[in-house]
Amino acid sequence: MKLATYRDGGVAKTGIIVGDQLIDTGLSQSMIALIADWTNLRPKLEAAAASGSSSPLDPANLCAPVPRPGKIFAIGLNYADHIAESKVETPKDQIWFAKASTSANGPYDPILVGRTGPYVDYEAELVVVIGKAGKHIPADRAHEHVFGYCVGNDVTERSWQHRTHQWTLGKSFDTHGPFGPWITTSDEVSDPHALDIQCLVNGDVRQASNTRHLVFNVWEQIAHLSQAMTLEAGDVIFTGTPGGIGAAMKPPKFLKAGDVLRTEIAGLGVLEATLEAEA
Amino acid sequence: MKLATYRDGGVAKTGIIVGDQLIDTGLSQSMIALIADWTNLRPKLEAAAASGSSSPLDPANLCAPVPRPGKIFAIGLNYADHIAESKVETPKDQIWFAKASTSANGPYDPILVGRTGPYVDYEAELVVVIGKAGKHIPADRAHEHVFGYCVGNDVTERSWQHRTHQWTLGKSFDTHGPFGPWITTSDEVSDPHALDIQCLVNGDVRQASNTRHLVFNVWEQIAHLSQAMTLEAGDVIFTGTPGGIGAAMKPPKFLKAGDVLRTEIAGLGVLEATLEAEA
Repeated sequence: MKLATYRDGGVAKTGIIVGDQLIDTGLSQSMIALIADWTNLRPKLEAAAASGSSSPLDPANLCAPVPRPGKIFAIGLNYADHIAESKVETPKDQIWFAKASTSANGPYDPILVGRTGPYVDYEAELVVVIGKAGKHIPADRAHEHVFGYCVGNDVTERSWQHRTHQWTLGKSFDTHGPFGPWITTSDEVSDPHALDIQCLVNGDVRQASNTRHLVFNVWEQIAHLSQAMTLEAGDVIFTGTPGGIGAAMKPPKFLKAGDVLRTEIAGLGVLEATLEAEA
Repeated sequence: MKLATYRDGGVAKTGIIVGDQLIDTGLSQSMIALIADWTNLRPKLEAAAASGSSSPLDPANLCAPVPRPGKIFAIGLNYADHIAESKVETPKDQIWFAKASTSANGPYDPILVGRTGPYVDYEAELVVVIGKAGKHIPADRAHEHVFGYCVGNDVTERSWQHRTHQWTLGKSFDTHGPFGPWITTSDEVSDPHALDIQCLVNGDVRQASNTRHLVFNVWEQIAHLSQAMTLEAGDVIFTGTPGGIGAAMKPPKFLKAGDVLRTEIAGLGVLEATLEAEA
């Protein structure tokens, strides 16, 4: 199933995507509550998907599928080619940082070039949405805790990322956590480690890889994070970006107002945002 | 006013603290919603405080005043004596990291020594709770965005803090973000930069300072953070810890199961937690 959050006259609703159609779930719960109660709600949603009245999907109405996640964690330096372009050694340990929950952004919503943070760069990533909560989750059972997958872009303001040794502020600007366009539930993703991933700026392919090249795979990531913290329904994990970031180009090339940033993962959909200068 | 969140038969409620008494606000909203609607709700709460039926406060029932903040950000190396004991230079720039929202913990709730993270240390801190949302908040207007203040302890697992160069996982263990015991609204705190702060382990004073020694003060912190992200009602800021941490003792001394960790700020109250081994 493909589950989205969308705006309908100023109200956020949850919907099911079937082809180019949107079906209102009719539920008043937020996506987090829906995920937490998935076992009970799934039959109702399947019935709604089969018989509900649908309307054409307007992508401009889509929100981040979890509009305000309880937490967003992201791993750094997790594809070999990105490690090489970053001129660092392959990490022996998983390197994690947080993105502020307020950075979550809809798949077609504008991405802001900050008034005091103009060095905006892209990082196409596979995004995992947690379903069943857990702590100390073993890697070989991590798949049981995944609700679904999304396309994401760990948009980064490079000057703030590196003004101190802690990256989080440069990862946390408003609008810099786009993901979606919807959640594809895990039963529809036969192998999350075999997905083509691409990032394009104004139609030029900047990143093109496959999730098989992850250094630490999704199961290892969930096992590691959950040693420290309980992962909960609707928590969001950005799983790392392949090579090709703008900061590593010669000369470096950052995103500017008017640019169109497109992020794709085979089978999961597309994000497409226009960059805008912050007012 | 002093506002708390407390457990009443498994349900989280908001209450007003008057002396050693607790008065139910009678509101169904969470603390975040209460803060967001403060202008409207304040008269009702003042009436409730004056005439509501009170009951003796049982500190064991207190939750973190904001049980699950939208975000928790914390500044590092922000008191001169802590910078000295950490053997680093005084930062020219504010160093920020995030604590997972799931680390929030009640003021008297146990703090866990992690199964895979035993090097648990304390960091007594003044905590700011945001009221009015804002972005690009100038330092000279930052006080308008503060809802109130709490006592906090930025409990840290030192081996995870330093296993990579990003501190956030070592700062994000479950139960490692205790704050409270309630929110003292900003109108009752004449100067947040003149508060005695102490941390005691089993009755021994380990940290004793005053918030006048902050390197970057509360207003500068709010101004800096809000350049990157919108600060929202109920967001929580940990403002830095003074010298005296266990990791800097010779030999280093970490918290162990059975220890009693007490954190005090003059006028804001006390946190007192027992350390427990994670099951």
